[in-house]
Amino acid sequence: METVSTARAHGGTQGVYRHRSAATGTDMTFSVYVPDHAPGTTLPLVWYLSGLTCTHANVTDKGEYRAACARHGLIFVAPDTSPRGEDVPDADRWDFGQGAGFYVDATAAPWSTHYKMWSYVTEELPALVAAAFPVDPARQSIMGHSMGGHGALTAALRHPGRYRAVSAFAPIVAPTQVPWGEALDRYLGDDAAAKRRHDAVALIEDGARVPELLVDQGEADSFLAEQLRPELLTAACAAAGIPLALRMRAGYDHSYLFVSSFMGDQLDWHAARLKR
Amino acid sequence: METVSTARAHGGTQGVYRHRSAATGTDMTFSVYVPDHAPGTTLPLVWYLSGLTCTHANVTDKGEYRAACARHGLIFVAPDTSPRGEDVPDADRWDFGQGAGFYVDATAAPWSTHYKMWSYVTEELPALVAAAFPVDPARQSIMGHSMGGHGALTAALRHPGRYRAVSAFAPIVAPTQVPWGEALDRYLGDDAAAKRRHDAVALIEDGARVPELLVDQGEADSFLAEQLRPELLTAACAAAGIPLALRMRAGYDHSYLFVSSFMGDQLDWHAARLKR
Repeated sequence: METVSTARAHGGTQGVYRHRSAATGTDMTFSVYVPDHAPGTTLPLVWYLSGLTCTHANVTDKGEYRAACARHGLIFVAPDTSPRGEDVPDADRWDFGQGAGFYVDATAAPWSTHYKMWSYVTEELPALVAAAFPVDPARQSIMGHSMGGHGALTAALRHPGRYRAVSAFAPIVAPTQVPWGEALDRYLGDDAAAKRRHDAVALIEDGARVPELLVDQGEADSFLAEQLRPELLTAACAAAGIPLALRMRAGYDHSYLFVSSFMGDQLDWHAARLKR
Repeated sequence: METVSTARAHGGTQGVYRHRSAATGTDMTFSVYVPDHAPGTTLPLVWYLSGLTCTHANVTDKGEYRAACARHGLIFVAPDTSPRGEDVPDADRWDFGQGAGFYVDATAAPWSTHYKMWSYVTEELPALVAAAFPVDPARQSIMGHSMGGHGALTAALRHPGRYRAVSAFAPIVAPTQVPWGEALDRYLGDDAAAKRRHDAVALIEDGARVPELLVDQGEADSFLAEQLRPELLTAACAAAGIPLALRMRAGYDHSYLFVSSFMGDQLDWHAARLKR
Protein backbone atom coordinates (compact mmCIF):
# COMPACT_ATOMS: atom_id res chain seq x y z
CA MET A 1 0.00 0.00 0.00
CA GLU A 2 1.34 3.38 -1.05
CA THR A 3 0.53 6.68 0.65
CA VAL A 4 -0.61 9.21 -1.94
CA SER A 5 -1.07 12.05 0.55
CA THR A 6 -1.74 12.76 4.19
CA ALA A 7 -2.75 16.01 5.82
CA ARG A 8 -3.91 17.07 9.22
CA ALA A 9 -7.62 17.95 9.33
CA HIS A 10 -10.14 18.58 12.10
CA GLY A 11 -7.87 17.07 14.74
CA GLY A 12 -7.04 13.94 12.79
CA THR A 13 -5.32 12.72 9.64
CA GLN A 14 -6.91 12.65 6.19
CA GLY A 15 -5.01 10.21 4.00
CA VAL A 16 -5.28 8.96 0.44
CA TYR A 17 -3.78 5.57 -0.37
CA ARG A 18 -3.21 3.37 -3.40
CA HIS A 19 -2.70 -0.37 -3.65
CA ARG A 20 -2.70 -3.20 -6.15
CA SER A 21 -6.05 -4.94 -5.84
CA ALA A 22 -6.19 -8.69 -6.31
CA ALA A 23 -9.97 -8.47 -6.72
CA THR A 24 -9.98 -5.99 -9.59
CA GLY A 25 -6.51 -6.63 -11.00
CA THR A 26 -5.89 -2.88 -11.02
CA ASP A 27 -4.45 -0.19 -8.81
CA MET A 28 -7.18 1.15 -6.52
CA THR A 29 -7.22 4.44 -4.63
CA PHE A 30 -9.16 5.11 -1.42
CA SER A 31 -9.22 7.67 1.38
CA VAL A 32 -9.13 7.12 5.15
CA TYR A 33 -9.73 9.68 7.88
CA VAL A 34 -8.36 8.77 11.30
CA PRO A 35 -9.14 11.02 14.27
CA ASP A 36 -6.48 11.47 16.90
CA HIS A 37 -6.70 8.73 19.52
CA ALA A 38 -4.74 7.32 22.40
CA PRO A 39 -1.83 5.07 21.31
CA GLY A 40 -2.80 1.42 21.28
CA THR A 41 -6.54 2.06 21.11
CA THR A 42 -8.76 1.16 18.19
CA LEU A 43 -11.68 3.07 16.73
CA PRO A 44 -15.00 2.22 15.10
CA LEU A 45 -15.03 2.36 11.31
CA VAL A 46 -17.64 3.86 8.96
CA TRP A 47 -17.61 2.75 5.33
CA TYR A 48 -18.84 5.28 2.77
CA LEU A 49 -19.67 4.03 -0.72
CA SER A 50 -19.89 6.70 -3.41
CA GLY A 51 -22.25 7.21 -6.31
CA LEU A 52 -22.08 7.22 -10.10
CA THR A 53 -19.14 9.11 -11.66
CA CYS A 54 -17.41 9.52 -8.28
CA THR A 55 -14.00 8.51 -7.04
CA HIS A 56 -12.87 8.57 -3.41
CA ALA A 57 -12.23 12.29 -3.90
CA ASN A 58 -15.82 13.57 -4.11
CA VAL A 59 -16.82 12.77 -0.56
CA THR A 60 -13.30 13.44 0.70
CA ASP A 61 -13.49 16.98 -0.69
CA LYS A 62 -17.18 17.77 -0.27
CA GLY A 63 -18.66 15.35 2.26
CA GLU A 64 -18.04 17.41 5.41
CA TYR A 65 -17.66 14.26 7.51
CA ARG A 66 -14.44 15.06 9.34
CA ALA A 67 -15.86 17.28 12.08
CA ALA A 68 -18.39 14.63 13.15
CA CYS A 69 -15.87 11.78 12.84
CA ALA A 70 -13.39 13.69 14.99
CA ARG A 71 -16.08 14.46 17.57
CA HIS A 72 -17.16 10.82 17.79
CA GLY A 73 -13.82 9.14 17.18
CA LEU A 74 -14.81 7.38 13.97
CA ILE A 75 -12.52 6.23 11.16
CA PHE A 76 -14.09 7.00 7.76
CA VAL A 77 -13.11 5.04 4.64
CA ALA A 78 -14.12 6.00 1.09
CA PRO A 79 -13.29 3.52 -1.71
CA ASP A 80 -13.43 4.22 -5.43
CA THR A 81 -16.54 3.18 -7.40
CA SER A 82 -14.94 0.97 -10.06
CA PRO A 83 -11.67 -0.34 -11.40
CA ARG A 84 -9.96 2.19 -13.64
CA GLY A 85 -7.25 2.23 -16.27
CA GLU A 86 -6.61 1.99 -19.97
CA ASP A 87 -6.91 -1.80 -19.87
CA VAL A 88 -10.25 -1.70 -18.07
CA PRO A 89 -13.37 -1.93 -20.28
CA ASP A 90 -15.42 1.25 -20.30
CA ALA A 91 -18.60 2.58 -21.89
CA ASP A 92 -19.50 5.89 -23.48
CA ARG A 93 -21.95 6.72 -20.74
CA TRP A 94 -21.66 7.97 -17.19
CA ASP A 95 -23.96 5.41 -15.58
CA PHE A 96 -22.05 2.31 -16.63
CA GLY A 97 -18.40 1.25 -16.88
CA GLN A 98 -15.63 3.17 -15.13
CA GLY A 99 -17.04 5.19 -12.23
CA ALA A 100 -20.12 2.95 -12.15
CA GLY A 101 -19.15 -0.46 -10.77
CA PHE A 102 -22.47 -0.90 -8.91
CA TYR A 103 -20.76 -2.93 -6.18
CA VAL A 104 -21.16 -6.27 -7.96
CA ASP A 105 -18.75 -8.99 -9.07
CA ALA A 106 -19.34 -8.98 -12.83
CA THR A 107 -19.76 -12.38 -14.44
CA ALA A 108 -20.42 -11.31 -18.05
CA ALA A 109 -17.68 -10.53 -20.58
CA PRO A 110 -15.86 -8.20 -20.96
CA TRP A 111 -16.62 -6.85 -17.48
CA SER A 112 -15.86 -9.98 -15.51
CA THR A 113 -12.09 -9.51 -15.69
CA HIS A 114 -11.87 -6.34 -13.59
CA TYR A 115 -15.31 -5.31 -12.29
CA LYS A 116 -15.19 -7.11 -8.94
CA MET A 117 -16.28 -4.29 -6.68
CA TRP A 118 -18.39 -6.51 -4.39
CA SER A 119 -15.36 -8.59 -3.41
CA TYR A 120 -13.29 -5.45 -3.25
CA VAL A 121 -15.45 -3.43 -0.84
CA THR A 122 -16.73 -6.31 1.29
CA GLU A 123 -13.61 -8.50 1.50
CA GLU A 124 -10.30 -7.25 0.14
CA LEU A 125 -10.37 -3.64 1.28
CA PRO A 126 -11.75 -4.40 4.77
CA ALA A 127 -8.85 -6.81 5.35
CA LEU A 128 -6.34 -4.25 4.11
CA VAL A 129 -7.82 -1.44 6.19
CA ALA A 130 -8.01 -3.57 9.33
CA ALA A 131 -4.34 -4.44 8.96
CA ALA A 132 -3.10 -0.93 8.22
CA PHE A 133 -5.23 1.34 10.44
CA PRO A 134 -6.25 1.33 14.13
CA VAL A 135 -9.65 -0.21 13.44
CA ASP A 136 -11.88 -2.20 15.77
CA PRO A 137 -13.35 -4.70 13.28
CA ALA A 138 -16.16 -5.53 15.69
CA ARG A 139 -17.46 -1.98 15.36
CA GLN A 140 -18.11 -1.24 11.69
CA SER A 141 -20.99 0.50 9.97
CA ILE A 142 -21.74 1.44 6.38
CA MET A 143 -23.38 4.26 4.47
CA GLY A 144 -23.49 5.42 0.87
CA HIS A 145 -24.90 7.85 -1.67
CA SER A 146 -27.06 6.92 -4.65
CA MET A 147 -25.31 3.93 -6.29
CA GLY A 148 -23.26 3.79 -3.10
CA GLY A 149 -26.47 3.69 -1.06
CA HIS A 150 -27.37 0.63 -3.10
CA GLY A 151 -23.96 -0.80 -2.24
CA ALA A 152 -24.33 -0.03 1.46
CA LEU A 153 -27.83 -1.50 1.73
CA THR A 154 -26.95 -4.70 -0.12
CA ALA A 155 -23.68 -5.15 1.79
CA ALA A 156 -25.50 -4.84 5.12
CA LEU A 157 -28.43 -7.06 4.10
CA ARG A 158 -26.05 -9.81 2.97
CA HIS A 159 -23.73 -9.66 5.99
CA PRO A 160 -25.99 -9.90 9.03
CA GLY A 161 -24.21 -8.75 12.15
CA ARG A 162 -21.17 -7.35 10.40
CA TYR A 163 -22.31 -3.72 10.28
CA ARG A 164 -23.77 -2.23 13.43
CA ALA A 165 -25.56 0.46 11.42
CA VAL A 166 -26.51 1.09 7.81
CA SER A 167 -27.82 4.27 6.25
CA ALA A 168 -27.97 5.98 2.90
CA PHE A 169 -28.35 9.28 1.08
CA ALA A 170 -30.75 9.06 -1.87
CA PRO A 171 -30.03 5.36 -2.49
CA ILE A 172 -30.92 3.22 -5.47
CA VAL A 173 -33.09 0.71 -3.60
CA ALA A 174 -34.43 -1.51 -6.39
CA PRO A 175 -32.06 -1.61 -9.37
CA THR A 176 -33.94 -4.46 -11.02
CA GLN A 177 -36.96 -2.13 -11.31
CA VAL A 178 -35.32 1.10 -12.55
CA PRO A 179 -33.37 2.20 -15.64
CA TRP A 180 -30.00 2.50 -13.88
CA GLY A 181 -30.35 -1.17 -13.09
CA GLU A 182 -29.54 -1.98 -16.72
CA ALA A 183 -26.00 -1.99 -15.40
CA LEU A 184 -26.80 -5.22 -13.57
CA ASP A 185 -27.96 -6.78 -16.86
CA ARG A 186 -24.61 -5.97 -18.40
CA TYR A 187 -22.46 -6.97 -15.46
CA LEU A 188 -24.43 -10.08 -14.48
CA GLY A 189 -26.00 -11.18 -17.77
CA ASP A 190 -29.15 -13.31 -17.55
CA ASP A 191 -28.62 -14.44 -13.97
CA ALA A 192 -31.86 -13.22 -12.40
CA ALA A 193 -31.02 -14.71 -9.01
CA ALA A 194 -27.69 -12.87 -8.92
CA LYS A 195 -29.46 -9.63 -9.75
CA ARG A 196 -31.89 -10.12 -6.87
CA ARG A 197 -28.91 -10.52 -4.56
CA HIS A 198 -27.82 -7.02 -5.63
CA ASP A 199 -31.21 -5.37 -5.12
CA ALA A 200 -32.05 -4.19 -1.60
CA VAL A 201 -35.81 -4.43 -2.04
CA ALA A 202 -35.53 -7.90 -3.57
CA LEU A 203 -33.18 -9.05 -0.79
CA ILE A 204 -35.71 -7.93 1.84
CA GLU A 205 -38.52 -9.63 -0.06
CA ASP A 206 -36.37 -12.77 -0.13
CA GLY A 207 -35.84 -12.71 3.62
CA ALA A 208 -32.69 -10.67 4.28
CA ARG A 209 -32.91 -8.45 7.35
CA VAL A 210 -31.18 -5.56 9.10
CA PRO A 211 -32.25 -4.26 12.51
CA GLU A 212 -33.19 -0.82 11.17
CA LEU A 213 -32.52 1.58 8.30
CA LEU A 214 -31.95 5.32 8.01
CA VAL A 215 -32.37 7.09 4.64
CA ASP A 216 -32.22 10.80 3.79
CA GLN A 217 -33.82 11.70 0.47
CA GLY A 218 -34.13 15.10 -1.18
CA GLU A 219 -37.57 15.93 -2.50
CA ALA A 220 -36.07 18.02 -5.32
CA ASP A 221 -33.79 15.18 -6.41
CA SER A 222 -34.18 14.90 -10.18
CA PHE A 223 -33.68 11.11 -9.99
CA LEU A 224 -36.29 10.56 -7.31
CA ALA A 225 -39.31 9.38 -9.28
CA GLU A 226 -37.63 7.29 -11.94
CA GLN A 227 -34.40 5.91 -10.48
CA LEU A 228 -34.57 6.03 -6.70
CA ARG A 229 -38.19 5.22 -5.82
CA PRO A 230 -37.91 5.12 -2.02
CA GLU A 231 -41.54 4.04 -1.82
CA LEU A 232 -40.39 0.58 -2.91
CA LEU A 233 -38.08 0.40 0.11
CA THR A 234 -40.82 1.71 2.38
CA ALA A 235 -43.16 -1.04 1.21
CA ALA A 236 -40.56 -3.78 1.50
CA CYS A 237 -39.53 -2.68 5.00
CA ALA A 238 -43.15 -2.41 6.12
CA ALA A 239 -43.87 -5.93 4.89
CA ALA A 240 -40.72 -7.27 6.54
CA GLY A 241 -41.08 -5.38 9.81
CA ILE A 242 -37.82 -3.48 9.38
CA PRO A 243 -37.98 -0.05 11.03
CA LEU A 244 -37.14 2.50 8.33
CA ALA A 245 -36.53 6.16 9.08
CA LEU A 246 -37.04 7.78 5.68
CA ARG A 247 -36.43 11.48 6.06
CA MET A 248 -37.76 13.37 3.04
CA ARG A 249 -35.86 16.66 2.79
CA ALA A 250 -37.88 19.45 1.17
CA GLY A 251 -35.98 21.32 -1.53
CA TYR A 252 -32.79 19.25 -1.48
CA ASP A 253 -31.30 17.80 -4.67
CA HIS A 254 -29.00 14.82 -5.37
CA SER A 255 -25.66 16.64 -5.00
CA TYR A 256 -23.03 16.79 -2.30
CA LEU A 257 -24.71 19.96 -1.06
CA PHE A 258 -27.47 17.56 0.01
CA VAL A 259 -25.14 14.84 1.29
CA SER A 260 -23.01 17.23 3.31
CA SER A 261 -26.10 18.85 4.83
CA PHE A 262 -27.10 15.59 6.54
CA MET A 263 -23.73 13.88 6.91
CA GLY A 264 -23.39 15.07 10.50
CA ASP A 265 -26.86 13.80 11.40
CA GLN A 266 -26.17 10.38 9.89
CA LEU A 267 -22.78 10.11 11.58
CA ASP A 268 -24.37 10.99 14.93
CA TRP A 269 -26.80 8.14 14.33
CA HIS A 270 -23.99 5.75 13.40
CA ALA A 271 -21.89 6.80 16.40
CA ALA A 272 -24.74 6.05 18.79
CA ARG A 273 -24.90 2.49 17.41
CA LEU A 274 -21.16 1.96 17.13
CA LYS A 275 -20.54 2.94 20.74
CA ARG A 276 -23.22 0.84 22.39
CA MET B 1 -26.90 39.12 -12.91
CA GLU B 2 -27.43 35.56 -14.06
CA THR B 3 -28.07 32.61 -11.75
CA VAL B 4 -25.69 29.78 -12.64
CA SER B 5 -27.05 27.37 -10.04
CA THR B 6 -28.87 27.24 -6.74
CA ALA B 7 -29.29 24.34 -4.38
CA ARG B 8 -30.57 23.84 -0.91
CA ALA B 9 -27.83 23.19 1.66
CA HIS B 10 -27.65 23.11 5.46
CA GLY B 11 -30.99 24.87 5.81
CA GLY B 12 -30.25 27.63 3.32
CA THR B 13 -29.52 28.28 -0.32
CA GLN B 14 -26.11 27.93 -1.96
CA GLY B 15 -26.08 29.90 -5.19
CA VAL B 16 -23.56 30.61 -7.92
CA TYR B 17 -24.03 33.77 -10.00
CA ARG B 18 -22.44 35.46 -12.98
CA HIS B 19 -22.49 39.10 -14.04
CA ARG B 20 -20.75 41.51 -16.35
CA SER B 21 -18.28 43.47 -14.28
CA ALA B 22 -17.69 47.12 -15.09
CA ALA B 23 -14.51 47.04 -13.00
CA THR B 24 -12.82 44.15 -14.80
CA GLY B 25 -14.58 44.40 -18.14
CA THR B 26 -15.25 40.66 -18.01
CA ASP B 27 -17.89 38.25 -16.84
CA MET B 28 -17.28 37.42 -13.18
CA THR B 29 -18.63 34.44 -11.22
CA PHE B 30 -19.19 34.36 -7.46
CA SER B 31 -21.03 32.26 -4.91
CA VAL B 32 -23.44 33.34 -2.18
CA TYR B 33 -24.83 31.26 0.67
CA VAL B 34 -28.01 32.59 2.27
CA PRO B 35 -29.39 30.85 5.36
CA ASP B 36 -33.14 30.66 5.76
CA HIS B 37 -34.49 33.75 7.47
CA ALA B 38 -37.75 35.48 8.22
CA PRO B 39 -39.19 37.37 5.22
CA GLY B 40 -38.22 41.02 5.27
CA THR B 41 -35.26 40.58 7.61
CA THR B 42 -31.63 41.15 6.64
CA LEU B 43 -28.56 39.20 7.64
CA PRO B 44 -24.91 39.99 8.38
CA LEU B 45 -22.52 39.27 5.54
CA VAL B 46 -19.10 37.58 5.61
CA TRP B 47 -16.77 38.14 2.66
CA TYR B 48 -14.34 35.33 1.85
CA LEU B 49 -11.43 36.09 -0.46
CA SER B 50 -9.70 33.07 -1.98
CA GLY B 51 -6.06 32.25 -2.61
CA LEU B 52 -3.82 31.68 -5.60
CA THR B 53 -5.21 29.43 -8.37
CA CYS B 54 -8.69 29.43 -6.82
CA THR B 55 -12.07 30.41 -8.19
CA HIS B 56 -15.23 30.84 -6.12
CA ALA B 57 -15.60 27.06 -6.34
CA ASN B 58 -12.77 25.94 -4.06
CA VAL B 59 -14.19 27.31 -0.85
CA THR B 60 -17.74 26.66 -2.00
CA ASP B 61 -16.91 22.97 -2.42
CA LYS B 62 -14.36 22.44 0.34
CA GLY B 63 -14.68 25.29 2.85
CA GLU B 64 -17.26 23.69 5.16
CA TYR B 65 -18.70 27.09 6.06
CA ARG B 66 -22.39 26.41 5.54
CA ALA B 67 -23.15 24.71 8.85
CA ALA B 68 -21.71 27.60 10.86
CA CYS B 69 -23.32 30.23 8.62
CA ALA B 70 -26.70 28.55 8.99
CA ARG B 71 -26.28 28.31 12.76
CA HIS B 72 -25.40 32.00 13.08
CA GLY B 73 -27.53 33.39 10.25
CA LEU B 74 -24.62 34.70 8.16
CA ILE B 75 -24.57 35.30 4.41
CA PHE B 76 -21.25 34.12 2.92
CA VAL B 77 -19.94 35.54 -0.36
CA ALA B 78 -16.97 34.11 -2.29
CA PRO B 79 -15.72 36.11 -5.31
CA ASP B 80 -13.30 34.88 -7.96
CA THR B 81 -9.59 35.76 -7.64
CA SER B 82 -9.04 37.48 -11.00
CA PRO B 83 -10.65 38.40 -14.28
CA ARG B 84 -10.70 35.48 -16.70
CA GLY B 85 -11.14 34.90 -20.41
CA GLU B 86 -9.28 34.55 -23.67
CA ASP B 87 -8.93 38.33 -23.96
CA VAL B 88 -7.48 38.68 -20.46
CA PRO B 89 -3.66 38.75 -20.22
CA ASP B 90 -2.22 35.71 -18.48
CA ALA B 91 1.17 34.32 -17.48
CA ASP B 92 2.71 30.87 -17.64
CA ARG B 93 2.82 30.60 -13.88
CA TRP B 94 0.30 29.87 -11.17
CA ASP B 95 1.20 32.77 -8.87
CA PHE B 96 0.54 35.55 -11.34
CA GLY B 97 -2.08 36.36 -13.97
CA GLN B 98 -5.43 34.58 -14.11
CA GLY B 99 -6.25 33.09 -10.72
CA ALA B 100 -3.83 35.50 -9.04
CA GLY B 101 -5.25 39.01 -9.11
CA PHE B 102 -3.84 39.90 -5.68
CA TYR B 103 -6.79 42.21 -4.97
CA VAL B 104 -5.19 45.27 -6.56
CA ASP B 105 -6.20 47.66 -9.34
CA ALA B 106 -3.37 47.14 -11.80
CA THR B 107 -1.85 50.27 -13.28
CA ALA B 108 0.87 48.71 -15.44
CA ALA B 109 0.31 47.41 -18.96
CA PRO B 110 -0.96 44.97 -20.07
CA TRP B 111 -2.65 44.18 -16.74
CA SER B 112 -4.32 47.53 -16.19
CA THR B 113 -7.15 46.84 -18.64
CA HIS B 114 -8.81 44.00 -16.71
CA TYR B 115 -7.01 43.38 -13.41
CA LYS B 116 -9.13 45.65 -11.18
CA MET B 117 -9.86 43.26 -8.36
CA TRP B 118 -9.57 45.90 -5.63
CA SER B 119 -12.41 47.93 -7.08
CA TYR B 120 -14.27 44.73 -7.81
CA VAL B 121 -14.24 43.21 -4.31
CA THR B 122 -14.44 46.45 -2.31
CA GLU B 123 -16.87 48.47 -4.44
CA GLU B 124 -18.64 46.86 -7.37
CA LEU B 125 -19.48 43.46 -5.92
CA PRO B 126 -20.58 44.81 -2.51
CA ALA B 127 -23.07 47.11 -4.25
CA LEU B 128 -24.36 44.27 -6.41
CA VAL B 129 -24.67 41.87 -3.46
CA ALA B 130 -26.39 44.46 -1.27
CA ALA B 131 -28.97 45.06 -4.00
CA ALA B 132 -29.63 41.42 -4.83
CA PHE B 133 -29.50 39.63 -1.47
CA PRO B 134 -31.04 40.24 2.00
CA VAL B 135 -27.88 41.85 3.38
CA ASP B 136 -27.54 44.28 6.26
CA PRO B 137 -24.69 46.46 4.93
CA ALA B 138 -23.99 47.77 8.42
CA ARG B 139 -22.96 44.30 9.51
CA GLN B 140 -20.19 43.05 7.24
CA SER B 141 -16.98 41.22 7.99
CA ILE B 142 -14.18 39.80 5.88
CA MET B 143 -11.84 36.81 5.86
CA GLY B 144 -9.56 35.15 3.36
CA HIS B 145 -6.99 32.45 2.67
CA SER B 146 -3.38 33.05 1.64
CA MET B 147 -3.53 35.66 -1.16
CA GLY B 148 -7.13 36.16 -0.04
CA GLY B 149 -5.93 36.73 3.51
CA HIS B 150 -3.80 39.51 2.08
CA GLY B 151 -6.91 40.87 0.38
CA ALA B 152 -8.98 40.68 3.54
CA LEU B 153 -6.37 42.35 5.73
CA THR B 154 -5.73 45.20 3.31
CA ALA B 155 -9.43 45.74 2.62
CA ALA B 156 -10.14 46.03 6.36
CA LEU B 157 -7.11 48.22 7.10
CA ARG B 158 -8.10 50.63 4.33
CA HIS B 159 -11.81 50.81 5.18
CA PRO B 160 -11.96 51.64 8.90
CA GLY B 161 -15.36 50.84 10.33
CA ARG B 162 -16.67 49.06 7.28
CA TYR B 163 -15.91 45.51 8.44
CA ARG B 164 -16.85 44.59 11.98
CA ALA B 165 -14.32 41.74 11.98
CA VAL B 166 -11.37 40.61 9.91
CA SER B 167 -9.53 37.30 10.02
CA ALA B 168 -7.40 35.13 7.81
CA PHE B 169 -6.12 31.64 7.16
CA ALA B 170 -2.38 31.56 6.40
CA PRO B 171 -2.37 35.06 4.92
CA ILE B 172 0.30 36.79 2.89
CA VAL B 173 0.96 39.65 5.31
CA ALA B 174 3.86 41.51 3.71
CA PRO B 175 3.90 41.05 -0.08
CA THR B 176 6.55 43.72 -0.57
CA GLN B 177 8.94 41.54 1.46
CA VAL B 178 8.30 38.07 -0.04
CA PRO B 179 8.68 36.41 -3.46
CA TRP B 180 4.95 36.19 -4.20
CA GLY B 181 4.89 39.98 -3.92
CA GLU B 182 6.62 40.19 -7.31
CA ALA B 183 3.05 40.21 -8.54
CA LEU B 184 2.69 43.71 -7.12
CA ASP B 185 5.73 44.82 -9.12
CA ARG B 186 4.07 43.62 -12.28
CA TYR B 187 0.60 44.93 -11.55
CA LEU B 188 1.66 48.25 -10.03
CA GLY B 189 5.01 48.93 -11.71
CA ASP B 190 7.39 51.21 -9.87
CA ASP B 191 4.80 52.85 -7.65
CA ALA B 192 6.25 52.04 -4.22
CA ALA B 193 3.53 53.98 -2.39
CA ALA B 194 0.81 52.00 -4.14
CA LYS B 195 2.54 48.77 -3.18
CA ARG B 196 2.63 49.81 0.48
CA ARG B 197 -1.11 50.39 0.31
CA HIS B 198 -1.45 46.71 -0.69
CA ASP B 199 0.76 45.34 2.07
CA ALA B 200 -0.86 44.74 5.46
CA VAL B 201 2.34 45.10 7.46
CA ALA B 202 3.27 48.31 5.61
CA LEU B 203 -0.24 49.70 6.08
CA ILE B 204 -0.01 49.13 9.83
CA GLU B 205 3.45 50.69 9.91
CA ASP B 206 2.00 53.65 8.04
CA GLY B 207 -0.77 54.12 10.59
CA ALA B 208 -3.73 52.04 9.40
CA ARG B 209 -5.60 50.31 12.20
CA VAL B 210 -8.21 47.63 12.86
CA PRO B 211 -9.59 46.90 16.33
CA GLU B 212 -8.19 43.35 16.40
CA LEU B 213 -7.04 40.53 14.15
CA LEU B 214 -7.49 36.75 14.12
CA VAL B 215 -5.15 34.53 12.09
CA ASP B 216 -4.91 30.74 11.89
CA GLN B 217 -1.62 29.44 10.50
CA GLY B 218 -0.52 25.84 9.96
CA GLU B 219 2.93 25.03 11.22
CA ALA B 220 3.46 22.47 8.45
CA ASP B 221 2.50 24.99 5.76
CA SER B 222 5.20 24.73 3.08
CA PHE B 223 4.87 28.47 2.35
CA LEU B 224 5.25 29.56 5.97
CA ALA B 225 8.89 30.59 6.20
CA GLU B 226 9.38 32.15 2.77
CA GLN B 227 6.03 33.58 1.66
CA LEU B 228 3.77 34.02 4.68
CA ARG B 229 6.08 35.13 7.52
CA PRO B 230 3.45 35.79 10.21
CA GLU B 231 6.20 37.09 12.51
CA LEU B 232 6.17 40.27 10.44
CA LEU B 233 2.49 40.77 11.24
CA THR B 234 3.10 39.97 14.90
CA ALA B 235 5.80 42.63 15.08
CA ALA B 236 3.75 45.25 13.26
CA CYS B 237 0.69 44.61 15.43
CA ALA B 238 2.76 44.72 18.60
CA ALA B 239 4.28 48.05 17.60
CA ALA B 240 0.87 49.44 16.68
CA GLY B 241 -1.00 48.09 19.69
CA ILE B 242 -3.35 45.96 17.56
CA PRO B 243 -4.44 42.84 19.44
CA LEU B 244 -3.53 39.88 17.21
CA ALA B 245 -4.66 36.34 17.96
CA LEU B 246 -2.22 34.26 15.91
CA ARG B 247 -3.12 30.62 16.37
CA MET B 248 -0.29 28.39 15.19
CA ARG B 249 -1.76 24.99 14.28
CA ALA B 250 0.67 22.12 14.73
CA GLY B 251 0.81 19.75 11.76
CA TYR B 252 -1.56 21.66 9.48
CA ASP B 253 -0.64 22.52 5.89
CA HIS B 254 -1.83 25.23 3.46
CA SER B 255 -4.74 23.32 1.93
CA TYR B 256 -8.50 23.42 2.34
CA LEU B 257 -8.14 20.57 4.82
CA PHE B 258 -6.55 23.25 7.03
CA VAL B 259 -9.02 26.00 6.12
CA SER B 260 -12.07 23.82 6.66
CA SER B 261 -10.73 22.62 10.02
CA PHE B 262 -10.85 26.13 11.48
CA MET B 263 -13.60 27.71 9.38
CA GLY B 264 -16.20 27.03 12.06
CA ASP B 265 -14.02 28.62 14.75
CA GLN B 266 -13.41 31.72 12.66
CA LEU B 267 -17.10 32.08 11.78
CA ASP B 268 -18.03 31.77 15.46
CA TRP B 269 -15.61 34.65 16.12
CA HIS B 270 -17.08 36.72 13.28
CA ALA B 271 -20.64 36.01 14.40
CA ALA B 272 -19.91 37.27 17.90
CA ARG B 273 -18.73 40.58 16.44
CA LEU B 274 -21.43 40.86 13.78
CA LYS B 275 -24.22 40.37 16.28
CA ARG B 276 -23.09 42.84 18.93
